[in-house]
Amino acid sequence: MSSNWTELENMSITAVPGFQAAGVACGLKNSKKDMAVICSEKETRAAGVFTQNLVQAAPVKLCKEHIKNPVRAVVVNSGNANACTGEQGRRDAYKMAEKVAEGLNLNPSQVLVCSTGVIGEPLAMDKVGAGIDQALTSLGRGEEFDTAAAEAILTTDTKIKRSAYRCNLPAGDFHLAGIAKGSGMICPNMATMLAFLVTDVNIEQALLQELFSEAANKTFNAITVDGETSTNDTALILAGGGSNKDEVEIKEGSEACEQFKALLEQVCRELAFQIVEDGEGLTKVINLTIKGAPDEEKGRIMARSVLNSPLVKTAFYGEDANWGRILAALGYSGVDFDPGKTDIFIGACQLARDGGAVPFSEVEMKTILQKKDIEVVVDLKQGPAEVKAWGTDMSHEYIRINSSYRS
Amino acid sequence: MSSNWTELENMSITAVPGFQAAGVACGLKNSKKDMAVICSEKETRAAGVFTQNLVQAAPVKLCKEHIKNPVRAVVVNSGNANACTGEQGRRDAYKMAEKVAEGLNLNPSQVLVCSTGVIGEPLAMDKVGAGIDQALTSLGRGEEFDTAAAEAILTTDTKIKRSAYRCNLPAGDFHLAGIAKGSGMICPNMATMLAFLVTDVNIEQALLQELFSEAANKTFNAITVDGETSTNDTALILAGGGSNKDEVEIKEGSEACEQFKALLEQVCRELAFQIVEDGEGLTKVINLTIKGAPDEEKGRIMARSVLNSPLVKTAFYGEDANWGRILAALGYSGVDFDPGKTDIFIGACQLARDGGAVPFSEVEMKTILQKKDIEVVVDLKQGPAEVKAWGTDMSHEYIRINSSYRS
Repeated sequence: MSSNWTELENMSITAVPGFQAAGVACGLKNSKKDMAVICSEKETRAAGVFTQNLVQAAPVKLCKEHIKNPVRAVVVNSGNANACTGEQGRRDAYKMAEKVAEGLNLNPSQVLVCSTGVIGEPLAMDKVGAGIDQALTSLGRGEEFDTAAAEAILTTDTKIKRSAYRCNLPAGDFHLAGIAKGSGMICPNMATMLAFLVTDVNIEQALLQELFSEAANKTFNAITVDGETSTNDTALILAGGGSNKDEVEIKEGSEACEQFKALLEQVCRELAFQIVEDGEGLTKVINLTIKGAPDEEKGRIMARSVLNSPLVKTAFYGEDANWGRILAALGYSGVDFDPGKTDIFIGACQLARDGGAVPFSEVEMKTILQKKDIEVVVDLKQGPAEVKAWGTDMSHEYIRINSSYRS
Repeated sequence: MSSNWTELENMSITAVPGFQAAGVACGLKNSKKDMAVICSEKETRAAGVFTQNLVQAAPVKLCKEHIKNPVRAVVVNSGNANACTGEQGRRDAYKMAEKVAEGLNLNPSQVLVCSTGVIGEPLAMDKVGAGIDQALTSLGRGEEFDTAAAEAILTTDTKIKRSAYRCNLPAGDFHLAGIAKGSGMICPNMATMLAFLVTDVNIEQALLQELFSEAANKTFNAITVDGETSTNDTALILAGGGSNKDEVEIKEGSEACEQFKALLEQVCRELAFQIVEDGEGLTKVINLTIKGAPDEEKGRIMARSVLNSPLVKTAFYGEDANWGRILAALGYSGVDFDPGKTDIFIGACQLARDGGAVPFSEVEMKTILQKKDIEVVVDLKQGPAEVKAWGTDMSHEYIRINSSYRS
């Protein structure tokens, strides 16, 4: 299906006609960039997926209110999550939308707001205000602007995350691009991750939401670094912000829709992978496949249980083929299954058959476990579903980063 | 209520009339002791609580079968958990019971079996057999025998865990004592912990089971080191193994029953505390109280979510008053509550009121967080229930121990 796609290397948001980006430093995060704005020339249809945590930051609540409107801009600050900040936090999130709307001559309801960083501390609104002013005057198109925006949304990340494609169809071309942040605390249900995608197709809001939710479920919600679900996780997509009147139309069931759906999943997966690969203190990426699950939802719960297990994670860090910990983590996942049927493979080596040990070569296993990318396959032999999920090991470095985050 | 209790320091199993203990080294765990036997002079009533993990080791299944019988002995090996070992593992567990029964002239159905250690590897039955023979000839009464048994059940533990009391009642005296193991992987639902209690009261099996389940729920199931629920967790109690015909009778609702119930909870709590304090790589013990929970079960789920959160645990390790991580962990626990009503205290300092920050003295907080024991109180203001739970921080040492466990 990818034969129609061209990857646009080193580009992101402004690879899509009609969108501008900016990223500046306003002092929330010492000298690093901490304020980004994405805006479109015309009204878009927007869709979003949000944290499942009951504790939701003020900007998440604002986004949920504004997402059905004809959105024109997204403003994002890093350094402070504006979470657990009560009524003051709510007012500050709305002030951010108002400030952007004022500068771009929009209605505040056309602006989405995201924040990430320390929770429980009020936003320094003087810095935020000056940062928004500066970002609005810095908007532009091109790699430099894309990179600035991608940098400004980072927290403990060590790298920017981005993806951009053009898709050539008989009906015309469309583009899809995105940036993301997330490191540590990355988990199913979108723990402390932000992702912003833009595209220039003509699509109904309801269909966009459906396709985006589905893609997020298979990608952003299938990654985990430490099992935490944060207060601020948000992924947004804006469609059709360009001035081009000949935008490709995406109608349910059409060939264009199939292409759009597949490319959407591809871009989300690339961003999700970049997040996992930049996981706090990781030394290994675990690619887990659960086969023979009773259904997809149960498979995902079991995958999460394995990839969030500190014992599994530390075993991989120690390059130890401790398949019993994998089986034990499946066993306490809450999903009913017969452990006595379970097969477990690491790389090409089978370690367990029907819940019991299979002799394997320790030498061969050592070679597999020394690699950075490790394939783990669990075959439950209970049902028809197969799910893929991605996680990391847990290292000394994880402890170092997270024991000194706030200070 | 404790005025009737006398602590019997440095003693455990054989502080109770009618019980003998032994602990020997049979080569499952290099040169350390790895085989323990506890036996009683006459038939006992037994009760047990077992892992909630769907993956249950062979000895757990055996114990569940034998627990209602008039048990006479418990055999425990460390070094190998006999878990995920299939049909061979089942046969080996029964062989252990048979071997003990043969040596003590019992029916194998009167023997309980526990194993702890590496999972997925078959037991070295030649060593196990020789170890049982040696243990049976080493049985005796006194501190030396108690200590040997307490040592033989340990894995990564750095200390033995024991507790013993005598209770003086108008109807006569009774004794209650126990030993335990568990370090790392300790979690609600009894992750990788073993506990063995003995007492010389006259009590019906059903009442003993009821009281023991209740005590375990408030103690062993309220501790957590890393949220793992293992394949082998077992706590057993044997009652009335002595030859004394004047055993205190425990009938539901009697004063003696109240005393027994309270002392049972006390001994279980002391063993649970010793397990937490010996948690793998811990530098702090977190004493968490959740007040105002909708009910006790929901309170326990929320406590578990906080105490299992790697972000909360690493924050305490870093002596960082990151109350937002506590609120976020409550938020993803799965229990419905209003975060906007939640108060959070660390030591005497209030950090959050109604879900929002309260200014506090960083100097005062630093003093509180530098201590080894830290009190955390969460007041949900949602309902009448209050629960207590205990956990630990997560340190570099945790990673070191668990990344090299199997090798």
